[in-house]
Amino acid sequence: MPPDPLQQHLRSNDRAHLEEFRRLVAFETVGGQPGHEDEMERCATWLCTHLEESGFDVRVLQTPEHPVVLAERLDAGPGAPTVLVYGHYDVQPVEPVELWSSPPFELTERDGVLYGRGAADMKGNLLIYLQSLRALHEVTGAIPCNVRVLIEGNEESNPYALEWVAEHHPEELRADAVVIADGGIAALDDPSVTIGVRGMAALRVTVTTASHDLHSGQYGGAVPNAAASLARLLATLHDDDGRVLVDGFYDAVVDMGPGENLDPEAILREAGASELIGDPAYTPGERIRTRPTLEIVGIEGGYTGEGLKTIVVAQAQAVISCRLVLDQDPIEIIDRVGAHLRAHAPRGAMVEIPWTLPGAWPARGASDGPAAVAALTALGESWGHSARAVLTGGSLPAAAILSRVTGAPFVNVAFSLPTSRAHAPDEHLPRELFERGHEVVCRMFSLLAPQTTAA
Amino acid sequence: MPPDPLQQHLRSNDRAHLEEFRRLVAFETVGGQPGHEDEMERCATWLCTHLEESGFDVRVLQTPEHPVVLAERLDAGPGAPTVLVYGHYDVQPVEPVELWSSPPFELTERDGVLYGRGAADMKGNLLIYLQSLRALHEVTGAIPCNVRVLIEGNEESNPYALEWVAEHHPEELRADAVVIADGGIAALDDPSVTIGVRGMAALRVTVTTASHDLHSGQYGGAVPNAAASLARLLATLHDDDGRVLVDGFYDAVVDMGPGENLDPEAILREAGASELIGDPAYTPGERIRTRPTLEIVGIEGGYTGEGLKTIVVAQAQAVISCRLVLDQDPIEIIDRVGAHLRAHAPRGAMVEIPWTLPGAWPARGASDGPAAVAALTALGESWGHSARAVLTGGSLPAAAILSRVTGAPFVNVAFSLPTSRAHAPDEHLPRELFERGHEVVCRMFSLLAPQTTAA
Repeated sequence: MPPDPLQQHLRSNDRAHLEEFRRLVAFETVGGQPGHEDEMERCATWLCTHLEESGFDVRVLQTPEHPVVLAERLDAGPGAPTVLVYGHYDVQPVEPVELWSSPPFELTERDGVLYGRGAADMKGNLLIYLQSLRALHEVTGAIPCNVRVLIEGNEESNPYALEWVAEHHPEELRADAVVIADGGIAALDDPSVTIGVRGMAALRVTVTTASHDLHSGQYGGAVPNAAASLARLLATLHDDDGRVLVDGFYDAVVDMGPGENLDPEAILREAGASELIGDPAYTPGERIRTRPTLEIVGIEGGYTGEGLKTIVVAQAQAVISCRLVLDQDPIEIIDRVGAHLRAHAPRGAMVEIPWTLPGAWPARGASDGPAAVAALTALGESWGHSARAVLTGGSLPAAAILSRVTGAPFVNVAFSLPTSRAHAPDEHLPRELFERGHEVVCRMFSLLAPQTTAA
Repeated sequence: MPPDPLQQHLRSNDRAHLEEFRRLVAFETVGGQPGHEDEMERCATWLCTHLEESGFDVRVLQTPEHPVVLAERLDAGPGAPTVLVYGHYDVQPVEPVELWSSPPFELTERDGVLYGRGAADMKGNLLIYLQSLRALHEVTGAIPCNVRVLIEGNEESNPYALEWVAEHHPEELRADAVVIADGGIAALDDPSVTIGVRGMAALRVTVTTASHDLHSGQYGGAVPNAAASLARLLATLHDDDGRVLVDGFYDAVVDMGPGENLDPEAILREAGASELIGDPAYTPGERIRTRPTLEIVGIEGGYTGEGLKTIVVAQAQAVISCRLVLDQDPIEIIDRVGAHLRAHAPRGAMVEIPWTLPGAWPARGASDGPAAVAALTALGESWGHSARAVLTGGSLPAAAILSRVTGAPFVNVAFSLPTSRAHAPDEHLPRELFERGHEVVCRMFSLLAPQTTAA
């Protein structure tokens, strides 16, 4: 592509874009932990200002949970499609902080890679969209298609909260295509868009065996231990291969045919793992992308700090999170897992489920919708070889919700990598992808203009 | 007993004794957690001053770990026996602090009960001895028998450290009887001394399945989860009844004949538990006092805080603590448990044992040694009915070490209760037992004078 004014504008703003990235990461928007409410408000306000600079009409919705930014610019004319762009400004907790190589809320560049909480999921991707829209506005004075923007603050902690927006503001979400800006490409040299996501359901289980921790010398051997009971209970959830043993867990699963092959060696290398597990009837790629899972995402009980507490542990807990595929219903899965845990309570252990989260329904988009076609074309042009539409093992709760409320297919167009350590310490985004993302997103919007045939 | 000058002195000093108790509990002597070194030093110095006030020659030994207080007063004459009194000034960690009804380092009286970390284990018992010795000194100008006092600071974190004292200062420990001041009576109306203790061995196990926590949507279903792997691993340690499945775990166990019967209903009530577990071939009393145990004292991995981290957990850990009986060797048991854990490593899980603690050898004392006889007599006089010599399920590492180095039988004479919540939040000691303890200990020392036959 010959350098055009838009590309030149993007390039000359590289440093300013990075400065804004730094600012956005510095908002400590851990929406799922209490005490971050002010930061959430400040971040939402900052995003509003950014969108206003691109000529958008913007409002902040005060919802029952964190504020939602809703923006629209619909002056591309009746012949142009309307695209709903979805993103979120909240991030995962940063614990354990000591495993970060640099402070999680200070965007830090090392060897061409940008490290920070939200760098990949998804403040980097969100900025690519906002800065691309502003570049289009500043260089051309217009946005090539009609654009609505929805940015929420509950994606990481309670994505179900988006239902509130869908229910109360459906008119403001009307669109011909849904573009989810949260996600990434398959690999650095494998540009892709995502058209299939897994659902998610989570719950907390507590096991109680006594009213208080007991001296192991005075009660050990006769009073049941909650930590041991929890271990026994959790061990009933999978067989040795990793298949889920919860009754009816797989009942609603639709066979989507053979899935993509992922390279097992690459998975092992990226994960730093020694062996893969899972149902041998499916390939590792299928296990990750088209089969449901049940993970213990946290376990805790008794004392594991320095020194030793010689106790019979009275209470222990675990958090369980499932990835779901079509047509599993997160609410039904929570019921089934809860029933399994209660039915398998070890002797003398009281099993309770104090918290559940029906996080996301699984969803399928389409590779032939207008936004998907534009995105695949833009990615192909930028990389110099054709891009793919893929399924991912991750969850994008917005995909099912916004597909349903708009009736339009979703496509996920974003620039993180599977290796970006989303949700983990040292989350990062290659600077090269941050810059290339602007180029692709500007091009995608241009291709969505009514006069799209001539590029 | 008619009020004698000693009893009158004790009674008139009740308030002063409590004030000293408050001061001693206020030393935050959590020896097993880093950062408490200064408090340990200050507490040791305070104890020295106290013993000097009773006419003891005192020194503080600087050991490879926390300081040891060594004191002696050997002026009772060659016809009097020499008694070695053992205690410790360190305490268990206080976490979880939020479960305490009052600050753990502020001794707080509620309804005649004294609450605070170390109230029962064992600052209260230690003070009973020190204040009784001072009362004898102040009222009679003498101590009826020769007394050595050894107070260490590693009992809760590394009781093995006492071996260093035994090895380097055996001459200063020579005695005809060993009195362990750390422990308690069977019940408020059941005065007893303890002549049998279990041993202890502990280890930490880590399970690693990946180099870092992974996004469950990108890796879940194919990469093994360390929290789930740890649960599966720990579940192999016991059968459904609670028998330990570690190969050879019971091999060295000596059958001590039928043990004491404990009331199962009382155990359930004290523990706030719904059901007892354990090998049905033994009574609950035997399981607690004469059979070995293996407890999961802590378990941790992933994230269980507010919000949700949808991860595949890369590393999880547990701490295991065993109570041992004659003739189990803690070092051999650690080897056997470690071998079991390695042999049962789930697929794709790396199992490591980064820390071990051979905490205590099991030990048996005698009910017919001079100190045991004096203690049983003094307890019987104080309670008005006869006292018992019992076995306990707890561990007193000093029992085996000091029995070995002195060649003298140990007896454990102390005043906490099984219900005192030692090692747990709201640890406490009834004020009545604190006061009665002084009476019994003064009387025990008096009975150890050469002219013991006439009481």
